[in-house]
Amino acid sequence: MKLNCDLGESFGAWTMGLDSEVMPYIDQANIACGFHGGDPLVMQKTLALAKQYQVSVGAHPSYPDLVGFGRRSMACSSEQIIALIHYQVAALDGMAKVQGLTVDYVKPHGALYNDMMVKPEVFNAILTALAQYPKKLTLMLQATADLAEYKKQASKLGVDVYSEAFADRCYDDKGRLLARSQAGAVLTKPAMLAQVKQLSEQGSVTTISGKVLKLSVDSLCVHGDNISAVQAIREIKDLMR
Amino acid sequence: MKLNCDLGESFGAWTMGLDSEVMPYIDQANIACGFHGGDPLVMQKTLALAKQYQVSVGAHPSYPDLVGFGRRSMACSSEQIIALIHYQVAALDGMAKVQGLTVDYVKPHGALYNDMMVKPEVFNAILTALAQYPKKLTLMLQATADLAEYKKQASKLGVDVYSEAFADRCYDDKGRLLARSQAGAVLTKPAMLAQVKQLSEQGSVTTISGKVLKLSVDSLCVHGDNISAVQAIREIKDLMR
Amino acid sequence: MKLNCDLGESFGAWTMGLDSEVMPYIDQANIACGFHGGDPLVMQKTLALAKQYQVSVGAHPSYPDLVGFGRRSMACSSEQIIALIHYQVAALDGMAKVQGLTVDYVKPHGALYNDMMVKPEVFNAILTALAQYPKKLTLMLQATADLAEYKKQASKLGVDVYSEAFADRCYDDKGRLLARSQAGAVLTKPAMLAQVKQLSEQGSVTTISGKVLKLSVDSLCVHGDNISAVQAIREIKDLMR
Amino acid sequence: MKLNCDLGESFGAWTMGLDSEVMPYIDQANIACGFHGGDPLVMQKTLALAKQYQVSVGAHPSYPDLVGFGRRSMACSSEQIIALIHYQVAALDGMAKVQGLTVDYVKPHGALYNDMMVKPEVFNAILTALAQYPKKLTLMLQATADLAEYKKQASKLGVDVYSEAFADRCYDDKGRLLARSQAGAVLTKPAMLAQVKQLSEQGSVTTISGKVLKLSVDSLCVHGDNISAVQAIREIKDLMR
Repeated sequence: MKLNCDLGESFGAWTMGLDSEVMPYIDQANIACGFHGGDPLVMQKTLALAKQYQVSVGAHPSYPDLVGFGRRSMACSSEQIIALIHYQVAALDGMAKVQGLTVDYVKPHGALYNDMMVKPEVFNAILTALAQYPKKLTLMLQATADLAEYKKQASKLGVDVYSEAFADRCYDDKGRLLARSQAGAVLTKPAMLAQVKQLSEQGSVTTISGKVLKLSVDSLCVHGDNISAVQAIREIKDLMR
Repeated sequence: MKLNCDLGESFGAWTMGLDSEVMPYIDQANIACGFHGGDPLVMQKTLALAKQYQVSVGAHPSYPDLVGFGRRSMACSSEQIIALIHYQVAALDGMAKVQGLTVDYVKPHGALYNDMMVKPEVFNAILTALAQYPKKLTLMLQATADLAEYKKQASKLGVDVYSEAFADRCYDDKGRLLARSQAGAVLTKPAMLAQVKQLSEQGSVTTISGKVLKLSVDSLCVHGDNISAVQAIREIKDLMR
Repeated sequence: MKLNCDLGESFGAWTMGLDSEVMPYIDQANIACGFHGGDPLVMQKTLALAKQYQVSVGAHPSYPDLVGFGRRSMACSSEQIIALIHYQVAALDGMAKVQGLTVDYVKPHGALYNDMMVKPEVFNAILTALAQYPKKLTLMLQATADLAEYKKQASKLGVDVYSEAFADRCYDDKGRLLARSQAGAVLTKPAMLAQVKQLSEQGSVTTISGKVLKLSVDSLCVHGDNISAVQAIREIKDLMR
Repeated sequence: MKLNCDLGESFGAWTMGLDSEVMPYIDQANIACGFHGGDPLVMQKTLALAKQYQVSVGAHPSYPDLVGFGRRSMACSSEQIIALIHYQVAALDGMAKVQGLTVDYVKPHGALYNDMMVKPEVFNAILTALAQYPKKLTLMLQATADLAEYKKQASKLGVDVYSEAFADRCYDDKGRLLARSQAGAVLTKPAMLAQVKQLSEQGSVTTISGKVLKLSVDSLCVHGDNISAVQAIREIKDLMR
């Protein structure tokens, strides 16, 4: 089970995330492409950091909503989604090549990620965008109870999938995350470490109702927003060794 | 002598230029990359149009100034210029590949183009960006009396050059364009056709002072903003046959 | 029954709408405030045009979606909607005062308008924004069969309402517009003129099912996108004299 | 001598500055208006904070350069500058009125501020914008050796002026700041406190060449970027009591 993290989300004069502290501990860097965060210079520096620690590079495209940080669902058409994914992935991919790197996968960001998981037409637009792209790109999506359905759909268009779980979020019985507004949605550190251990050793989570749910997980999403988050990544890393 | 034109400068709901009317008559399409005009969908459609008429694709990157249409000089650092060129060229290049096309050259837009011709550090940043890019990209710049100096500088970094002249603009003795604010800066149609003929047959222009100035020109920049501009392109095309 | 039109939707180098041709014929100008169209200079010029023809000025605020022209619904929170309305209305209001004008009313644009009519929390956020604004602003919304409900809600917060009908759109039995994708959604010119006549003389429309529906209409929304639209405005004007 | 500070420069998901920590210690808050930082919600919250501590509100307008944080000079025309100042000031002014506040003064931001001090046409455009604004707004500019010239120019257009000095920056003999790239440009804390004391008690600074230069200063610009900056403000406050 790999570790992935959203990085390169600074913008202009604004800093976000402890990218330099996080990069040494992760396997996959989801790099913002300028639509919710990231700008050409931030992208360049984040790629250089990924290169230094030999971390796999993923594109992290978003709806065009800078002030909303890509967190607000937008009623984009399929053709708009396809074009904006191509644009963002291509921008990062070309900048990666300048540094001798290559984009390996795509993880949609924020509301685009959430919409992908619940709106078939959004999922399909994203798959189409990846299928059309001139090089093979794996799609990172959420490991849920019905992951097989997503994989089947992706497979039809020839797109491979990485499934990811969230270290610090509580799951419901369908393998979906509890909304942040619900009590217990975000796990305490001991509960988070227990969940990682269970995912790592048994390939399952214990849901909010107490049910043990099998989840097929390729990668674990961790956060690097602050010092304690970075410390948590180190402990997760130790646990998984 | 080829014909090049700035295209793909529509943005969202706003249309600019008669792209479909112009594309059949030109050899090189300078396609906006989203920073002064163009958006992912406009880029996709402009590329499809270039493909239909087998027109060579050039990236037309700009300072990040949408409301100013990239026409206002901005005090960007060299590292900012390099990064924003990489981003824009890469975005167009990847989207071109989706359609089986490739970006052949780069023509900076508006104020970035003007700054390139008069500010050595801007010219150098642009050359560096192209030299670093993983595939060979020719730089399109202005044919002036001192073109050899520019070419020498470009050559040092291994960058090839296309020189372009302007069909409808009056030249001074240094091979620079008269500012639009000056009388006679924009040629009447007969004068424009005469200038094209002279460039095409004798490789020279007659400057504002009446001097005949040799200009080494690979491509002629034409405009497609309105019906009469498109008509002028047809007449230029006839003339050059 | 007054005539209102969306104006000032040009942006930077891009022109939209025949504002100078339309302004002489209308009573109320809905002026874009920079979030879906309009920029400070366009706003200044549109205000000057409104002043010249003594047209009432309305603010036309939008979701922050320039590339989507404010036509895509965005999942904005109530506090975000309130703040973005205050910002846009205030910007136009202050610029109006520079020219000795004042903003009289607010008509939300595009997806924000549509969401206002169908999502109670959006309608409420808009009403709250207007109620909090330091001067009285009337809200322009759509005349539907259940207009009284909207007015009651607005009245609770002390907000006055202008109801508007659409000259060229076919209505369903609830007084809603047929979606543009449906056959017959956009009326032919003779049908449009007949609908205007009926609205003007009898205060009703004939719906798609043939039912005569009473609509209480303060203003008629017309379009100024092209020459034939402007000609239609002139004919509507003649009809209503 | 008052204390002023740039505040409200967060944007969307990005935080900048310790606004809550700084507000209690200052007299004048220069609030960003959305073009280099700030968004409608950030502006609303910053105004509420200013209200809480009864701090005078100034508009802090910028060139339209979000990714460059308004720090890059842009070749804007006078009419563009006038319009963008009206837009930004009006937006903040209207939002201030919603909270029962009013904008008292205008301090241009970053490159616009620097250009104002060295380019007469920019200074003149800014004065014109303020003179045209329907309420009296004082312009905050830099206290230099030739301040009287600026005041004379402002007075011609009926604009009042606040002159400000910089606590932590070393001055040259013309009362200009040493460029940050020069050695000694940014003062150590003891030197900064000494400069504040000298400004406060004797109305002068000691320049880089050792000359004592009289400066007429209405306000002192302090920074609130980090904990030590906030601590410095407290010490300055103590010193000036």
